Amino acid sequence: MPGKSIALPAPIEQAIAELSRLPGIGPRSAQRLVFHLLRGDREKIDGVARSLLNLSGRVRHCTICGNFTENDPCAVCADTTRRRDKICVVEQCYDLAVIERGGSYDGLYHVLGGAISPLHGRFEADVRIPQLLDRLNGVTEVILATNPNTEGEATALLIQKRIQESGKPITITKIARGLPAGSDLEYADDATLSEAMKRRVEI
Amino acid sequence: MPGKSIALPAPIEQAIAELSRLPGIGPRSAQRLVFHLLRGDREKIDGVARSLLNLSGRVRHCTICGNFTENDPCAVCADTTRRRDKICVVEQCYDLAVIERGGSYDGLYHVLGGAISPLHGRFEADVRIPQLLDRLNGVTEVILATNPNTEGEATALLIQKRIQESGKPITITKIARGLPAGSDLEYADDATLSEAMKRRVEI
Repeated sequence: MPGKSIALPAPIEQAIAELSRLPGIGPRSAQRLVFHLLRGDREKIDGVARSLLNLSGRVRHCTICGNFTENDPCAVCADTTRRRDKICVVEQCYDLAVIERGGSYDGLYHVLGGAISPLHGRFEADVRIPQLLDRLNGVTEVILATNPNTEGEATALLIQKRIQESGKPITITKIARGLPAGSDLEYADDATLSEAMKRRVEI
Repeated sequence: MPGKSIALPAPIEQAIAELSRLPGIGPRSAQRLVFHLLRGDREKIDGVARSLLNLSGRVRHCTICGNFTENDPCAVCADTTRRRDKICVVEQCYDLAVIERGGSYDGLYHVLGGAISPLHGRFEADVRIPQLLDRLNGVTEVILATNPNTEGEATALLIQKRIQESGKPITITKIARGLPAGSDLEYADDATLSEAMKRRVEI
């Protein structure tokens, strides 16, 4: 009697396989998601699909700061009411979104796209450090908001060294440690991040 | 200084909104999902989107048992090696998939599409009970595998009553309670369900 079980229809199997590759979604919850979608309105499924196609088709990187954007330059770089003498350096676009949500920062950003990691073959040119150094004219403060872990700290240290080497009179600060060491910036809550931004210290 | 925060690009906001409407995905994890997708290969995003469009375009209900299928009748109803004298009644297609995965059942299914719930306006015609009664010729056993909660039990009781009223010599069984009462079928593990199927008792 065993071994007779019928496989799911191919489109269902495929959708489960695609969804279970996403972070935080295992095969079991992917299956529940797919059946939930099928149980509801078909237009709802198409809505999710269309929003993903828009995501892949319409979102690109700002050529100035590296942030995700529909228009180049991005809304932050194009905003003339923001202070242009401060640049906050983050590893990922997600980190920028988290700091923006905090609402206590009114300068510009620079998204590295990652931290240096010689073991993984990521060196300073791979994380847009040269592009940052090209943006420093008229800048009086660079705020280093890389992740408070080994790679993030190493990246911050390298950026600090390069700015000092450039001889420009720029204050280099670091957002305050309200974050538990060894963690990722993206898990911090808004209040902690806002506080950490306000209490940033010169290094 | 506060109140200056820039909104995310519209496609990102929309994708977050769509994903956070899914069960088990809050706004925070939707945001992480979207940024994870953007960080990776654009073709991967399109792959997820395409699989969802296939889901909505190619999956329909089997006109016999109500299961999700690409072809009508579905693979279970079309399989001539399965026993046609047993029908297992479940509430949702997902429950059918879970029992199939258990691998210990070789008969047919009938998917109700829900349990009766007068409070929510779902009566017996809304959960495909008439369609079940139309399928009983040649059937010797109906296995009731509705969820072991109030609505599921009420539905099972009503089906039992209707089959007995039909006067057909059909054995009515219920899958064994290995499941904790008050829970949903879809959370049970394969082994428990397989056991429950084997130890089903006549009612």
